[in-house]
Amino acid sequence: MNIEIIKDKKNEEFSREKSINLITDYVNQSKDIDLQNHIKELHNADIADILHNLDPEIRIVFIEKIKSNFDPEILTYLNDSLRDEIVEELDVKQLASNSKTLEIDDAVDLVEDFEKSDQNTFLENIEENERKLIEEGLNYPEDSAGRLMQRNFVSFEDSWNVGQAIDNLRQNKKNLPEDFYEIYLINNDKRISGTVPLGRLMGSKREINLSDIKNKKTRKIKVNIDQEEVAFLFNKYGLVSAPVINENENIIGSITVDDVVDVIEEEREEDILKLGGVGQTDIYDAVINTTRLRFSWLFLNLLTAIIASFVISFFQTSIEKVVALAVLMPIVASMGGNAGTQTLTVSVRALAIKELNPTNAMKIVLKETFIGGINGIIFAIITSLVSMYWFQDIMLGLIIGLAMVLNLILAGFAGTIIPLTLDKFKIDPALASGVILTTITDVFGFLSFLGLASIFLF
Amino acid sequence: MNIEIIKDKKNEEFSREKSINLITDYVNQSKDIDLQNHIKELHNADIADILHNLDPEIRIVFIEKIKSNFDPEILTYLNDSLRDEIVEELDVKQLASNSKTLEIDDAVDLVEDFEKSDQNTFLENIEENERKLIEEGLNYPEDSAGRLMQRNFVSFEDSWNVGQAIDNLRQNKKNLPEDFYEIYLINNDKRISGTVPLGRLMGSKREINLSDIKNKKTRKIKVNIDQEEVAFLFNKYGLVSAPVINENENIIGSITVDDVVDVIEEEREEDILKLGGVGQTDIYDAVINTTRLRFSWLFLNLLTAIIASFVISFFQTSIEKVVALAVLMPIVASMGGNAGTQTLTVSVRALAIKELNPTNAMKIVLKETFIGGINGIIFAIITSLVSMYWFQDIMLGLIIGLAMVLNLILAGFAGTIIPLTLDKFKIDPALASGVILTTITDVFGFLSFLGLASIFLF
Repeated sequence: MNIEIIKDKKNEEFSREKSINLITDYVNQSKDIDLQNHIKELHNADIADILHNLDPEIRIVFIEKIKSNFDPEILTYLNDSLRDEIVEELDVKQLASNSKTLEIDDAVDLVEDFEKSDQNTFLENIEENERKLIEEGLNYPEDSAGRLMQRNFVSFEDSWNVGQAIDNLRQNKKNLPEDFYEIYLINNDKRISGTVPLGRLMGSKREINLSDIKNKKTRKIKVNIDQEEVAFLFNKYGLVSAPVINENENIIGSITVDDVVDVIEEEREEDILKLGGVGQTDIYDAVINTTRLRFSWLFLNLLTAIIASFVISFFQTSIEKVVALAVLMPIVASMGGNAGTQTLTVSVRALAIKELNPTNAMKIVLKETFIGGINGIIFAIITSLVSMYWFQDIMLGLIIGLAMVLNLILAGFAGTIIPLTLDKFKIDPALASGVILTTITDVFGFLSFLGLASIFLF
Repeated sequence: MNIEIIKDKKNEEFSREKSINLITDYVNQSKDIDLQNHIKELHNADIADILHNLDPEIRIVFIEKIKSNFDPEILTYLNDSLRDEIVEELDVKQLASNSKTLEIDDAVDLVEDFEKSDQNTFLENIEENERKLIEEGLNYPEDSAGRLMQRNFVSFEDSWNVGQAIDNLRQNKKNLPEDFYEIYLINNDKRISGTVPLGRLMGSKREINLSDIKNKKTRKIKVNIDQEEVAFLFNKYGLVSAPVINENENIIGSITVDDVVDVIEEEREEDILKLGGVGQTDIYDAVINTTRLRFSWLFLNLLTAIIASFVISFFQTSIEKVVALAVLMPIVASMGGNAGTQTLTVSVRALAIKELNPTNAMKIVLKETFIGGINGIIFAIITSLVSMYWFQDIMLGLIIGLAMVLNLILAGFAGTIIPLTLDKFKIDPALASGVILTTITDVFGFLSFLGLASIFLF
């Protein structure tokens, strides 16, 4: 019974807190062997997780202790800022000699962020063959399929049968990629002619031709397309792997879904952060870095706030006469900003997943403007009644209501037309739409309300 | 040469515009055979894509024409609103009889959204065996691993060798799942004891024991955990498939990465829409539905705007005396809202991917408050100078500067503490944080600026 429990323990799930406590103890008490044994039990992703959460002082000692057999794959799971920090503490030469099991796509992902000198040291200290592949990888544009692909894949002539394929796999055991889920078929011209899932291969009789069990369609990835496009294809067609081809349709690599999941997470992060007015940053970033990154966005916001104030300043005389205008004016602007942001969020998202496209763009703009109008009317009535009651002024109520309708219609229109326009000019709509939108709804909110008041109240 | 081109064409990539034009022509000219042939060439995901983008009137005729052999899998690619619409036009009985190739997980995903009567019709018209599995699937909580899993998986006794496994696969050809990438090992107690990737199985000699080539760790999914947790595990450990187990550690299903990619996309959508103040909705939703969904959020925003106005109304006398206060006050509130949203976005995101956790929560709160302070000082200086120059009033400049520092410090603090608190009370931080935050920064922005002005200016 006791043995059973110990056995179970070996396969237990990762607990961050437990591991951190253990490692902190081992480090403090210099129990190096226990430390090494614990590390051996952990997945590299878990070690990265721990590095993120260890006390910085413990972390430095910890890295010192595991430095000599530090698996470079751990670095691929770290956030940029911590990765840079840890690479500085590591010996890049040593790291290179530990990189035998590193896949080429992971190596490219790692080396591309190294400083120039580290990059050279690393490349000089790995095998000739790998160096060449990594350098080739680095030659593809950033965020392209070429950077994502593994160079090791399995391809057979499409005239072979199942038996030949299985025998060949068994003979080449040592050269097989660590993970592969499909074999690729090539024709006489060395062009891709199909893909066969491993499961189907295993379940087929030896004498069946490979070309008879290939997938109906070959989903192939051009080496130069953007990783976002790769993720879109994998997601749309539920792919697990796909061959990467050059302009001659020769297979030059393979992308597997685990790399694509990373891309999707990365793009998701980017979308969310951009919509929130934050550049590429993370919670572990140094204070000075974070402050600087956020500054530019806030500065832009200050300029737009000053523009809005400038609009208000035209109506100082009106406000002096009826101070209720100052009390009520933020409501119109705020409602416009929020309604616009709703539309904007939906549009930016729909653009990203190609639900919003040239075919339906005008229809969606009209629809959103119309929705803005309906909500505008409802909120105009509510706001009018509140204002009339609050300030006992029917005219004031009517004016704020009219301003509200106008601003919400504009918000619906601007919330779709801004991202569509930016997208047309190849500017990322997630990044720039928000600030343009709120400038428009703020300025127009103040302008319409104070303007109408100046006309009708005096 | 001519033949070559035609061959290439057969395997060409999907072009939405081309397909829509073709289908519209075929429908208008009643070229039914051409239509059927074109449809046969398309992936179900592409047919769904076309349905989303076809002119609604053409769509109705189109569905009428393909109704009799409509593959229910197409429905799984559709957005909720369009799916409901199309199901109404289809014959559910017919749909059920077309569902032979539908995987159980897709069937569950489909049937769970059907109306009760359609659900019954569908289940009554499929095979006994499948009905049972679908009903079991529906018994698991919504968004749980149990709903995601396939019921068809390959498991062998862990005492077998590679040869036995391969022979067995070949014998059971007909019962293999459509896609599988790993085989699962079970011990004498029928408990999961390991996983072996297919690629490794293929590359191993017949006499090698399965248990000698199994993965070092078995990543297993408990049937009741949330799909977000499933996605987290797949992403962290780069999994391609994982066995789903019940409380006795018996394998009851398998989740593959393509289902997880869907979940990640779904959760991404949810995050973004929630942060933008939009409920679950999509761009194809009917106007009335969209208006209603957005209304509640805007109504909440109206209440907070009125609270802010209420705060302003306390200072009407001050504003009457110095109307510059009305001109400048939106700047302080707006800067607070934006700085807070930045912090909030980073925090919500970090919570979701577990980078922000109880271990480092206090440190991050302090850091963000500190960053708020630094940016606060910088923007206080800029805003002070602008205000002094604009209104030729040094005291007014000092007051707005002080209010700015205070509001940006509060924004940094609130931007982290609000999502952390909501998360603690199991309220989704992405959904509720934004409105609480801007209420706080608006109210405090107006209060601090107008309050300080009332004290120091008069």
